[in-house]
Amino acid sequence: MNHNAAIGVFDSGIGGLTVAREIARELPGETLIYLGDTARLPYGSKSAETVIKYAVRNVSFLAKSQLKAIVVACNTVSSVALPALREIVSVPVLGVIEPGARAAVAATRSGIIGVIGQPGTIRSGRYESAILQVASAARIYSRPTPLLVPLAEEGWVGTEVARLVLKEYLTPLVEKGIDTLVLGCTHYPLFKEQLNALFATEHPRDIVLVDSAVSIAVELRKLLTSQDLLADAQPPSHRFFATDSTETFARVGRNFWGEDFPQVLHVDL
Amino acid sequence: MNHNAAIGVFDSGIGGLTVAREIARELPGETLIYLGDTARLPYGSKSAETVIKYAVRNVSFLAKSQLKAIVVACNTVSSVALPALREIVSVPVLGVIEPGARAAVAATRSGIIGVIGQPGTIRSGRYESAILQVASAARIYSRPTPLLVPLAEEGWVGTEVARLVLKEYLTPLVEKGIDTLVLGCTHYPLFKEQLNALFATEHPRDIVLVDSAVSIAVELRKLLTSQDLLADAQPPSHRFFATDSTETFARVGRNFWGEDFPQVLHVDL
Repeated sequence: MNHNAAIGVFDSGIGGLTVAREIARELPGETLIYLGDTARLPYGSKSAETVIKYAVRNVSFLAKSQLKAIVVACNTVSSVALPALREIVSVPVLGVIEPGARAAVAATRSGIIGVIGQPGTIRSGRYESAILQVASAARIYSRPTPLLVPLAEEGWVGTEVARLVLKEYLTPLVEKGIDTLVLGCTHYPLFKEQLNALFATEHPRDIVLVDSAVSIAVELRKLLTSQDLLADAQPPSHRFFATDSTETFARVGRNFWGEDFPQVLHVDL
Repeated sequence: MNHNAAIGVFDSGIGGLTVAREIARELPGETLIYLGDTARLPYGSKSAETVIKYAVRNVSFLAKSQLKAIVVACNTVSSVALPALREIVSVPVLGVIEPGARAAVAATRSGIIGVIGQPGTIRSGRYESAILQVASAARIYSRPTPLLVPLAEEGWVGTEVARLVLKEYLTPLVEKGIDTLVLGCTHYPLFKEQLNALFATEHPRDIVLVDSAVSIAVELRKLLTSQDLLADAQPPSHRFFATDSTETFARVGRNFWGEDFPQVLHVDL
């Protein structure tokens, strides 16, 4: 295995760039190849069969490059497609569910955990089973919160509309006594501040927000270290691909990646 | 041309069923073949190139059946893909833009018309040019209103959140003095009642809502009549296809179609 092989990262769109960014922070010497399947997004509202089909195509594309690991940045794909993906490549395939579940269990004191995500993620029940695997006495309340993605993409984070939507979605979970909330979608961390404000004013309770992007980056560093696969010291040369307009990807994705892209290439899958 | 050939109708998903329903009302003897490309929805946020590619695939599928006309129920496809579609089939291809534009011109008294739609539709500027073609002195104010689709699909029509979103989107158009509003997306007619209530209470002005589904059904009847292509009196046998889960299509689509489906078939495109 080549130390300087790249790390493949993919998502249905641009949200996975928050995961890629955390990996780049945690492992600054590693080269990332990122694929956003923007022509078919969102995955979160689609059936498991369709999501698996798209995920297999994405991984087949990434695997044309020399890789040492693949990170599934999308919660929906992580929920339903990991077994299928592990059948078609020999390198490790990491999903966001298990790292997020472990972080939630580490954070909770009451053992009452909330999970929000897109419909496909919640329907799969994968967060529940991953949490119960490490904390069998945990009580988990989950809810699909689909409007948060278009609200984020419309740039309405921080608005009164967003506050009302968050309140509508979260109040039932808070009333169940959760002290930890898993943000089970790459877009949701954008609402961290507004969620904290909501919990502080509406419900006087301290609720820990779990962002899987941070957890998976740490997990990936441990994996590469244990397998002696860290890149030699060198500046990385990331590559970014999108299946729809590269111009839109570069413009909207900038907010998720945190800086401008050198170049975004189009790929037809 | 066979009188009893079917009418092909397609959309990115289930919204186009509102158009199919109007056609079935206007032309109760005609057999419809409906395709919802639910595996790739939504189209409204995607680039023109990608939308054209998907639309060509959809029409190629529909054209395997014997057709006498194709109705593009999707505003985004109607905005960008009609020339490409007319190249690959010989039967008439009708889009929703021109009928909607003509209905808006017929309705307006002040000549000041508002248009709302998904980003791809508004970006194309097709409603503007279609309106100006029949009323060159019209003043048109348009706005992308992407959140209305997930709000409708989440079942939040009629809620306080929906009211705030509509107010945020529409107030600038009302302030421009529009007396007619084109609902440039198949999902938007679900908000008719709430829009009328908003205009009545917030802005004391009578604004006519234009729903293209009704206009295109009338247009299609005129076309078939003029070409002597109306079906012989017989009960129609509609067929419905979806590219993602047929179960979800049948469940959610029921509200748009107005009754249960005999059967929905899956097609992999």
